[in-house]
Amino acid sequence: MKKRLLAIAVIAGLGIMADASAADDLQQKAAAMFSAIPQYPPVIDGNEMTDAKIELGKMLFFEPRLSASHLISCNTCHNVGMGGHDYLPVSIGHGWQKGPRNSPTVFNAVFNAAQFWDGRAVDLAEQAKGPVQAGVEMNSTPERVEDTLNSMPDYVERFRQAFPGQGSPVSFDNMATAIEAFEATLITPDSNFDKYLRGNTDALNAEEQEGLALFMNKGCVACHAGTNLGGQDYYPFGLVTRPGDDILPPGDKGRFAVTATATDEYVFRAAPLRNIELTAPYFHSGAVWSLEEAVAVMGTAQLGSKLEESDVASITTFLKTLTGNIPVVQYPELPPSTDSTPRPQDMIP
Amino acid sequence: MKKRLLAIAVIAGLGIMADASAADDLQQKAAAMFSAIPQYPPVIDGNEMTDAKIELGKMLFFEPRLSASHLISCNTCHNVGMGGHDYLPVSIGHGWQKGPRNSPTVFNAVFNAAQFWDGRAVDLAEQAKGPVQAGVEMNSTPERVEDTLNSMPDYVERFRQAFPGQGSPVSFDNMATAIEAFEATLITPDSNFDKYLRGNTDALNAEEQEGLALFMNKGCVACHAGTNLGGQDYYPFGLVTRPGDDILPPGDKGRFAVTATATDEYVFRAAPLRNIELTAPYFHSGAVWSLEEAVAVMGTAQLGSKLEESDVASITTFLKTLTGNIPVVQYPELPPSTDSTPRPQDMIP
Repeated sequence: MKKRLLAIAVIAGLGIMADASAADDLQQKAAAMFSAIPQYPPVIDGNEMTDAKIELGKMLFFEPRLSASHLISCNTCHNVGMGGHDYLPVSIGHGWQKGPRNSPTVFNAVFNAAQFWDGRAVDLAEQAKGPVQAGVEMNSTPERVEDTLNSMPDYVERFRQAFPGQGSPVSFDNMATAIEAFEATLITPDSNFDKYLRGNTDALNAEEQEGLALFMNKGCVACHAGTNLGGQDYYPFGLVTRPGDDILPPGDKGRFAVTATATDEYVFRAAPLRNIELTAPYFHSGAVWSLEEAVAVMGTAQLGSKLEESDVASITTFLKTLTGNIPVVQYPELPPSTDSTPRPQDMIP
Repeated sequence: MKKRLLAIAVIAGLGIMADASAADDLQQKAAAMFSAIPQYPPVIDGNEMTDAKIELGKMLFFEPRLSASHLISCNTCHNVGMGGHDYLPVSIGHGWQKGPRNSPTVFNAVFNAAQFWDGRAVDLAEQAKGPVQAGVEMNSTPERVEDTLNSMPDYVERFRQAFPGQGSPVSFDNMATAIEAFEATLITPDSNFDKYLRGNTDALNAEEQEGLALFMNKGCVACHAGTNLGGQDYYPFGLVTRPGDDILPPGDKGRFAVTATATDEYVFRAAPLRNIELTAPYFHSGAVWSLEEAVAVMGTAQLGSKLEESDVASITTFLKTLTGNIPVVQYPELPPSTDSTPRPQDMIP
């Protein structure tokens, strides 16, 4: 009896070892494909991260007077309290106009290879200049921005401190550089997936590990890898099967507008999947509200195989482990408008 | 020689004593007319200030999904980073419509006798229900708000904790009660004027004290007294001389709309003057950007005497001592929209 029990224990032990080995294998494969979000903001070449610059960048990020109407700030569409975006299919901008594409989250955006759905900005500083000037977004101009900032002595002093040694520190370019410095702090470390990548096998339960295995084995990982599980390269949307016009509107040819290359028609940057449960609705069109539905659409459009309902559920369960610690942001105190601050221009275009 | 010096010293000493006595007198008179902002939020009858309720109220204050469009939150027009308002003549609301009056600051609003420029809301809870439903502001309905909050489990749990023992804690009324609790924390103590009122004579310099003396002697204090130097009672705008139509638009008859009493035509709540240097543009019309100009307009319209330029400057100098410590607000983390969250309605009306 004692011997039999021992034998069973040995077999059971082998079983556990085999499971453990498979689990180790999955963890090793994952560690080779993905990277954890670091605990601290990354170094940005050419943009030293000083406290003065980050604080100025935060003020500018929350500054509605960078828009012509004085209504819209970066935070309006990239809301730090709402997953770094706005829970809208497409954002509302100057004159209640609609933007052409879904607002991407600012969280972890610093880890993307390029910015915007079509990658037309090489970094966050270049990105920041876009919406400020876009007629459908903030509808301002570099000159107006500089006049606005120069009209408030507190901003002038803060630019001087953030960009020491510069003759004319208050500039549109420096605005963008400071915003980039602040945005680089908006990272979300310590998701359960990151803990798992760092070696804590128990950080994902069996169901979540199964979802991860499916995510890798079904091919999702081909486009959604790296630190942000996406955001690194460009792929045709509808690689295998073209989705409906609601999800992939025919009028938006994606990266084609940037490269004017026929093969870039309907090509978009693979969406970064960090905190994906906080960033509905999905796709550049913002047409899909349910994460399960978005996973199913991807299966058909990109992988060419209708995913089983149970696979969709399992992958979705895994994706929810990508939610990290949301950055703590203290609301900045912005200086008062002065007599020389350009007046709000709210004309409907 | 020694004797003469002594005599001069005695005379000079008497002069100092006379000045000190006048200063004491001013300080005593001021202490009788005004009250300092307290260090801690006041008690609100019927609205117990628990941490759970204040935190929920903060989330709701920053919650754009209380608006039909999901674009506009309380903080849009009562921005805690911008003096508690929006630096606009009148706010921009749903469909890019303009509001009828200048957005008052939320800072210290709890000390006003009633809310809105016409006092039509008795307290901050009643006030909070107005903009949420106003077609030109957030354009929502109580039912839609309740559906929205019920669609997010985190809100349901937080309402339960904030309103313990209630059968259906998620309600439009409780939304307003929680917002009131948060707004009551948005007070700005420790202005130099408050330090002066509390006994520190040196907290106002000679010029500022001169401005205070003018503020009291010229009659400003008749309407602008109490904790908020205003916000306590209603007065005709243009008591002596009617300002131009730009400042007092003929279409807005103020409190007349509330009371339907002929004597209330063009009657408004006296503006609270706390942090006035942070709340341009001025008046219910938001027509005047310069604080000096606003003081001059008041002299002519309400006091019937054209104030000397030096008096305007002096009173303005005093008014700038009313700027207190801005509340520190950590941006709340709002729960994600779910499949059952009512979708944004952004139709232009």
